[in-house]
Amino acid sequence: MGGTQMNRLYIVGIGPGKRSGMTMEADEALRRADVIVGYSKYVELVRPYYPDKRFHDTGMTRERERCAEALRLAREGETVALVCSGDSVVYGMAGLIYELAGEAPGVELQVIPGVTAALSGGAILGAPLGHDFAVISLSDLLTPWETIEKRLRCAAAGDLCMSLYNPGSHRRTDYLQRACDILLETLPPETVCGMAREIGRAGENWQVTTLGRLRDTPVDMFTTVYIGNSMTRVISGKMVTPRGYRLD
Amino acid sequence: MGGTQMNRLYIVGIGPGKRSGMTMEADEALRRADVIVGYSKYVELVRPYYPDKRFHDTGMTRERERCAEALRLAREGETVALVCSGDSVVYGMAGLIYELAGEAPGVELQVIPGVTAALSGGAILGAPLGHDFAVISLSDLLTPWETIEKRLRCAAAGDLCMSLYNPGSHRRTDYLQRACDILLETLPPETVCGMAREIGRAGENWQVTTLGRLRDTPVDMFTTVYIGNSMTRVISGKMVTPRGYRLD
Repeated sequence: MGGTQMNRLYIVGIGPGKRSGMTMEADEALRRADVIVGYSKYVELVRPYYPDKRFHDTGMTRERERCAEALRLAREGETVALVCSGDSVVYGMAGLIYELAGEAPGVELQVIPGVTAALSGGAILGAPLGHDFAVISLSDLLTPWETIEKRLRCAAAGDLCMSLYNPGSHRRTDYLQRACDILLETLPPETVCGMAREIGRAGENWQVTTLGRLRDTPVDMFTTVYIGNSMTRVISGKMVTPRGYRLD
Repeated sequence: MGGTQMNRLYIVGIGPGKRSGMTMEADEALRRADVIVGYSKYVELVRPYYPDKRFHDTGMTRERERCAEALRLAREGETVALVCSGDSVVYGMAGLIYELAGEAPGVELQVIPGVTAALSGGAILGAPLGHDFAVISLSDLLTPWETIEKRLRCAAAGDLCMSLYNPGSHRRTDYLQRACDILLETLPPETVCGMAREIGRAGENWQVTTLGRLRDTPVDMFTTVYIGNSMTRVISGKMVTPRGYRLD
């Protein structure tokens, strides 16, 4: 196949996991696709809703192979949807696809955004990111830890709310503790913080806490962490950062 | 009405504007609502799709009145959806609703997230927020300009990508220029930048540029601006921040 036909690769953010958290255009792209490609965990989330599709799933850290496979299939004439958890750009595959796409002329790329964990977890916790914020991943798989430390220090110095992705894993058991210790150089231990886990999936849960207590809370790779700014408060048990409207 | 019934107020992020950019759960909340409340511009975006609903629209800077009205209607026994552009938390109404909700016991709040402009505009531009990033509003209506300056300096010092909301308006014609001058203290003028305008609406357009040129580009309140980090590149005309996967 291939040739003069303009083939299409959708890079699709599927949101937090439940089908209703997906946008209508994400659903439309998956319905148009011949083949759905993705990390096996995300492929399993969508598979029940698109029973007539072909699926190619790959293991967790095989991002380059997954993207190359999606491009190869599109180049061969398939309409392909590459699924990403949350958004397709934020820690997603869109950037890598652009980097690799030179290898696949004639494939039209369409990036479809999705609700990233900072937002889907935020909605469960209350309104933690109601003002300026930073999103920082604690994974040092692709980023030097020194860069992560610098970004945490800068975000704290700027009084930015934060959403921390990948706060821990089997291997990285003390990363959130190390991050909290850096933030505690600048921020008071009573800073309002929160955690959301398994957002939009079975076992979803959330917790509002303080920076001092967050330091000693175990987390895993399914947890998203929120650090409040100096205005963040607990209201009716929820984590709320006011935008600053006058209430009087 | 009122009394023992548990009434519901949905605070709904409707995404960038086109219906397909809305999540399925946002659509479901609007279909369940008796009344849809919001800023007139956003109410007009959804009105054609929910013809059997009642609508309450309010002017732009009347956020407190809008939220109080939504809570009043819910307390009276209506199922209410309060619509926010993009996400319901990020510069949205969820925080203000929590602040005011003490006035309306018996109203169950449900925050429904949406695709905020940083993500919907990012998908048009390529993959600008492919790594750690900050979202900062340049509006000083509710935030002192000194705080905005500090946050810009800190985000630049942290080599964070940025998405800047509210970069200009009729009144604030030089705010993006002032922001760029602050960023240029730290970042080189050739830093890759981008703009997305009227995302998901008629007249949608985008542009990739540099920080030096961005400084002298006119923008309005329908524009979202992107500042790259030290790794951001232009690939096939798109703005791409690699996550750092090895390509060899």
